[in-house]
Amino acid sequence: MKKDIQNRLKTISLSIIESYKTYKQISHLNSEDLPKREEVIDVVLRLREVLFPGYFSKHGCNSKSVNAMVDEEIDIIYKKLHKQVYCAFVLYADKENADKSKLLTSAEEKTLAFLGKISYMREILAMDVKAAYEGDPAASSTDEIIFSYPGIFAIMTHRIAHELHLLSVPLIPRIMSEYAHAITGIDIHPGAKIGKHFFIDHGTGIVIGETTQIGEYVRIYQGVTLGALSLRAGQSLRGTKRHPTLENNVIVYAGASILGGNTVIGEGVVIGSNVFITKSVAGKTNVSMKTPELQYIDKASKKSRKKDEDMMIDWVI
Amino acid sequence: MKKDIQNRLKTISLSIIESYKTYKQISHLNSEDLPKREEVIDVVLRLREVLFPGYFSKHGCNSKSVNAMVDEEIDIIYKKLHKQVYCAFVLYADKENADKSKLLTSAEEKTLAFLGKISYMREILAMDVKAAYEGDPAASSTDEIIFSYPGIFAIMTHRIAHELHLLSVPLIPRIMSEYAHAITGIDIHPGAKIGKHFFIDHGTGIVIGETTQIGEYVRIYQGVTLGALSLRAGQSLRGTKRHPTLENNVIVYAGASILGGNTVIGEGVVIGSNVFITKSVAGKTNVSMKTPELQYIDKASKKSRKKDEDMMIDWVI
Amino acid sequence: MKKDIQNRLKTISLSIIESYKTYKQISHLNSEDLPKREEVIDVVLRLREVLFPGYFSKHGCNSKSVNAMVDEEIDIIYKKLHKQVYCAFVLYADKENADKSKLLTSAEEKTLAFLGKISYMREILAMDVKAAYEGDPAASSTDEIIFSYPGIFAIMTHRIAHELHLLSVPLIPRIMSEYAHAITGIDIHPGAKIGKHFFIDHGTGIVIGETTQIGEYVRIYQGVTLGALSLRAGQSLRGTKRHPTLENNVIVYAGASILGGNTVIGEGVVIGSNVFITKSVAGKTNVSMKTPELQYIDKASKKSRKKDEDMMIDWVI
Repeated sequence: MKKDIQNRLKTISLSIIESYKTYKQISHLNSEDLPKREEVIDVVLRLREVLFPGYFSKHGCNSKSVNAMVDEEIDIIYKKLHKQVYCAFVLYADKENADKSKLLTSAEEKTLAFLGKISYMREILAMDVKAAYEGDPAASSTDEIIFSYPGIFAIMTHRIAHELHLLSVPLIPRIMSEYAHAITGIDIHPGAKIGKHFFIDHGTGIVIGETTQIGEYVRIYQGVTLGALSLRAGQSLRGTKRHPTLENNVIVYAGASILGGNTVIGEGVVIGSNVFITKSVAGKTNVSMKTPELQYIDKASKKSRKKDEDMMIDWVI
Repeated sequence: MKKDIQNRLKTISLSIIESYKTYKQISHLNSEDLPKREEVIDVVLRLREVLFPGYFSKHGCNSKSVNAMVDEEIDIIYKKLHKQVYCAFVLYADKENADKSKLLTSAEEKTLAFLGKISYMREILAMDVKAAYEGDPAASSTDEIIFSYPGIFAIMTHRIAHELHLLSVPLIPRIMSEYAHAITGIDIHPGAKIGKHFFIDHGTGIVIGETTQIGEYVRIYQGVTLGALSLRAGQSLRGTKRHPTLENNVIVYAGASILGGNTVIGEGVVIGSNVFITKSVAGKTNVSMKTPELQYIDKASKKSRKKDEDMMIDWVI
Repeated sequence: MKKDIQNRLKTISLSIIESYKTYKQISHLNSEDLPKREEVIDVVLRLREVLFPGYFSKHGCNSKSVNAMVDEEIDIIYKKLHKQVYCAFVLYADKENADKSKLLTSAEEKTLAFLGKISYMREILAMDVKAAYEGDPAASSTDEIIFSYPGIFAIMTHRIAHELHLLSVPLIPRIMSEYAHAITGIDIHPGAKIGKHFFIDHGTGIVIGETTQIGEYVRIYQGVTLGALSLRAGQSLRGTKRHPTLENNVIVYAGASILGGNTVIGEGVVIGSNVFITKSVAGKTNVSMKTPELQYIDKASKKSRKKDEDMMIDWVI
């Protein structure tokens, strides 16, 4: 490299280092103890192999090797997750008074408690896979669902992140859920409570907010928002119930928005495509858009064209 | 690691292994022969280099090295794809009566038949790239399109997956299409039939269902759903035509939904943004939403504000 | 491998190589000098560590090691980016008359000019992180935002790509922005001008077109399109202002579409969820959909069900 360029790069480096003093809120100059995003993601992918044994391992497994696989993976997952949970505790701790050995022990207990939930998570996930198979006529087998359905990856990651959230582990659950969001386009906050036998089809664009509550046997489609009403108050809304409640057996079709912390969608309700709703709906109701008025213009004459029959949305009934 | 923790991890491992006996539908304890998602993805990326030579190789290629590159890649792709197709056949075969040597030979023939389609796929993809260039004023060159357009990656992967689907290869096409979905947000089922010179712009949120038929010179934008009407019947709908037909030269703008297996969108039709349609449309028609009524409220006075001119959607004409 | 299969693969390879002569627009047989997508992505990820020091490095950094880290990274980024910028210049140059040493020098100058903007980008990004923290009640810390928010990754990548776009570097900015699109579902063209303190929440499905102008303190949500009106004219529209202008302090809620190059959304305007707008809006106005009419059908009796109170969209006020 030319001397001249070397010098100019040196000047640039110095000005960057200088800027680290000015915008401290986006610098972490003592970051040995900072959680590592890549380690958190590695934990999720290893948990996937333990939750669905055989499907995602490099060399497969058989009924003999599976015991050794689980022993080894649980060991590795424990070490990695314990480290990340500890780092998250340090990051959110009161810098002055933090008792590091206490944080270490707490991270141990939380990590063990989490790992103790794996069998339970398998029970729930078995029902989620069943829900996907039953709900999607394009599914040819449960293997296809486990291998390739983004909805299953999203709900698996959510069930992992939610257990850590329940254990009051900061940051780590959110890194997990945003990883699933990046892979699937499905954005579920770790705080959302979601019952068993949950099915997400296609999924891209789905948003499920922090204080959402979803019952059992619920199905939602791409582009659905379970969100907050006004968001302008920002941080002042922290901790309040801002997102809706869906009772058991609700179906929400593509593109619908259900907003507000007091909005309760009753048992067995079907919310049609693109419906925008901010009030509660009584159980056993089908909600759909009134027939949208469309204009049909003949391209050649630029004149309106009559349809033989009226456009009718009869599909949710 | 402390002895105590080791013991607790051991207990956790044992309970997990125990749970593998209970939820067998999400375990594959004899999985040496299971398809490998990562191998399938590697095949797609290698095919990309063969389909668009020079663009994605680590070291580039020149008119001399290209022959060796193709020989080598075709060899590797054959071996990998053959293995995956074979594993998929084993997975879907009748466990008792499967003749493994027959499955091996069948996988050979299917893989060779697929590779024989590469030149044909290049012919179609050359037109898809042309469609993107002609259709997008932001495109500065066809190189930019091949390097970076998610729509091209999605349609390339679809054309690969669809050829395997036509050869009745199970599972592998779906793993491919869901990989493209993860990368692009564009969800095209391998079963969809799509004519040449197809252009997808932006693409996030697009869903194209299994039994969709799309003619030539069609263009679709982000958030478009070509979907099924009622989905509540689930698996009982398998194999029926549930998704729409789009004839040649149709344009579907962002956010529109076209639903139903009997819905035929005629030649040259333009479907406007956000249109929701479940009935057929005659050719050479522009379909758009009736002017949506909006409310304009002055923030200070909280009173309604009159617009000088009416809101008018004149953009599709 | 069987001799027979070897021969058939050889025939396939030859026909593929033959097809490279026919569809030249999708082949690059002399591609040693072609930009490499993976190198461009590596530059973005290294810049992320320099822009947010400590957060994404493998081993963390401390106040001592940070200087060496910056020196080393700036050196590597310079070499890699210079190479990619040079390759992009070669690709877009007039093949006959290109003066390669001139292109090399120009790439040097552009790369240095770009690196000189890093401190400035940090200043803007510090405000973008602040915007996310203030705007999202679910955010528990700015660390969580930097680690996991897709909106921050998208706007960071945009600010990098936009600086290169301003320096008239072809192709490289677009590869960067499409990488961020793949990761986040947020599609921002490198040409878009976006003021400081910009917040994107959730983000999946957002499209921000090439000639969009966005003021300061603006907030947008998932599924928002800032797009063009008619797109049928394709390449003939190149270079014209086709996308809207948003003035300072505008909020655009989920799923809204704002279209057209002459459409100006005035200061302080709030655009409600799903609004579709193609005309300018005066400042300090709340725009929302008129109450959409919904149908409530009792599932058992199939009869319409009256609601106790009318559906009312009161959330944007």
